[in-house]
Amino acid sequence: MDQNKQTEIASLGEFGLIDTLTRDFPLRNSESVKGVGDDAAILRFGEEDVLVTTDMLLEGVHFDLRYVPLKHLGYKAAVVNFSDVYAMNGTPKQITVGIGASSRFTVEHLEELYSGIRLACEVYGVDLVGGDTCASASGLVISVTCIGTARKEDVVTRDGAKPTDLICVSGDLGAAYMGLQLLERENSVAASHGPGFQPDFAGKEYILERQLKPEARRDIVAALREAGVRPTSMMDVSDGLSSELLHICKDSDTGCRVYEDRIPIDYQTACMAEEFNLNLVTAAMNGGEDYELLFTVPLVDKEKVEKIKGITMIGYVTKPELGCALVSRDGSEIPIRAQGWNAFTSSQGNPE
Amino acid sequence: MDQNKQTEIASLGEFGLIDTLTRDFPLRNSESVKGVGDDAAILRFGEEDVLVTTDMLLEGVHFDLRYVPLKHLGYKAAVVNFSDVYAMNGTPKQITVGIGASSRFTVEHLEELYSGIRLACEVYGVDLVGGDTCASASGLVISVTCIGTARKEDVVTRDGAKPTDLICVSGDLGAAYMGLQLLERENSVAASHGPGFQPDFAGKEYILERQLKPEARRDIVAALREAGVRPTSMMDVSDGLSSELLHICKDSDTGCRVYEDRIPIDYQTACMAEEFNLNLVTAAMNGGEDYELLFTVPLVDKEKVEKIKGITMIGYVTKPELGCALVSRDGSEIPIRAQGWNAFTSSQGNPE
Repeated sequence: MDQNKQTEIASLGEFGLIDTLTRDFPLRNSESVKGVGDDAAILRFGEEDVLVTTDMLLEGVHFDLRYVPLKHLGYKAAVVNFSDVYAMNGTPKQITVGIGASSRFTVEHLEELYSGIRLACEVYGVDLVGGDTCASASGLVISVTCIGTARKEDVVTRDGAKPTDLICVSGDLGAAYMGLQLLERENSVAASHGPGFQPDFAGKEYILERQLKPEARRDIVAALREAGVRPTSMMDVSDGLSSELLHICKDSDTGCRVYEDRIPIDYQTACMAEEFNLNLVTAAMNGGEDYELLFTVPLVDKEKVEKIKGITMIGYVTKPELGCALVSRDGSEIPIRAQGWNAFTSSQGNPE
Repeated sequence: MDQNKQTEIASLGEFGLIDTLTRDFPLRNSESVKGVGDDAAILRFGEEDVLVTTDMLLEGVHFDLRYVPLKHLGYKAAVVNFSDVYAMNGTPKQITVGIGASSRFTVEHLEELYSGIRLACEVYGVDLVGGDTCASASGLVISVTCIGTARKEDVVTRDGAKPTDLICVSGDLGAAYMGLQLLERENSVAASHGPGFQPDFAGKEYILERQLKPEARRDIVAALREAGVRPTSMMDVSDGLSSELLHICKDSDTGCRVYEDRIPIDYQTACMAEEFNLNLVTAAMNGGEDYELLFTVPLVDKEKVEKIKGITMIGYVTKPELGCALVSRDGSEIPIRAQGWNAFTSSQGNPE
């Protein structure tokens, strides 16, 4: 290893790092339509486009087995990949799963993990077609690759938003983040009370489920198709609304205005924010892991979209020189900055 | 986690574990032609078949950064996946790469790793189309998924061997294993000598390269195609010849006879075996990581295959009731048992 110049990974951030590492990889094969830089890669083998996306989940970084059951973890590991394919307006068809497990895991543990993967495959009609299972020196590693299909003309990338397009989001935001806060608090309370402590999650089932068992919004993709609406850009909200808005605006060369009072938030999320004394809008804008769909539609489709349940119009696309801003309740504009979950900065506190 | 019945992963072995975990996953989509159980999955999206394979490499289990340069590691991580696609008689086209790195790794380290992946992509004409980069709590994790194509009629699986077929292997065997022994010895000598010690690898370049920078045998796949020979079964030698022979014979419902004196071994491998006082045939049969191709061809193609450089006929396929045996130099038959590298049993000595 060259010891001359060494740059901390955290100093680049996740996206800066990916840019740095992948910029010198030209696409050589005619089948490779689009490489790094969207929810999924686009490959063309026949009549339909083939979408490929991959995600890695690491114990101690992405999940904590003290409060995430293995079955839920398996379900989530699969579903977040399906979500990436839906976010391209495609249908997930196959997954491969790579597992690294240390000797503290038994066959029964892995069967529990796979029972969650199996349930996700059943619910979403996806086939497990391959994988790799090996020992790890420490902890659990899960790597999932998902393959999906879409008709060529249906594929939606991040770079098609146009000024005056409406910005829409499905479901509600911030709940998964609040669910994580709740799990972490109950876990630390449990630790101080010793065995026998039973956490009380009554009235908080929704935010817990949003964190532990997220769903991919294939219903929204189907409803848009049925209504004859093709989004001009789309992605799923995994890192946080702020981060995803900036991705779409950067790739589409636009700005945006999003209205604070239009951001959909569930009442359980709001209650927890108050209980935890957390800023609700910050949680909704930057919490991440909601796996809702963020997309833009032409203004002419406004009425069609309004008729679809579970979609909220939160703002509109502008020319790039106007930048990206959140319009607060009092009408003032706050520049949107990416404060999404950053795997590298969040890792600084982890033991080596 | 259910604490009632707990089975150690090592007790099942890698293949037993994969069978256990994946047996309840039916294939639902018409595009999924073949799932778990070969070098790659087979998907059908258009005129050509799409092959998908995935591999995970974990620090402390699959590699040791004390003697594996990061660039070589990147190269190998990509090439071993290409090898799986060639082993299906296909052509690798795209890869996705997932990286988990702890904070002891810098941007420059990852750039070095990617420079090896880039070189492999250049040499084999493969496109990097996606990936995921994240923090890990400890060590380096590399997960590569490779996508390839093959004409439907060209795809070769493990289950097509027929009695009287000739068993062939490309290149030579056991060298990668000897290279690893050498690296481990020099590393422990270096540790006892302190800084300034320079290992002497003169005359051992070949076995080192076989361990550190393996190549996938696309030349053999191309030569067979050019000669008009379609193997009846094929796989790459990653776990060891014994293990792979048993896979082909089990999946094809056959037995086999392989002649000890026909197994191709390089003289550097032989010299090292003598120096280390290791059984040469055991190293060649069970060493693994050679990434040569093991395949069977119909007897009628014998002359065609004989003309191709770098292929050795090592035996023949029999009826299943004859079992799998190695015929030693004195004519006695030794049953072939899988003693290939087993990721789970080899992990028992690793720190938790």
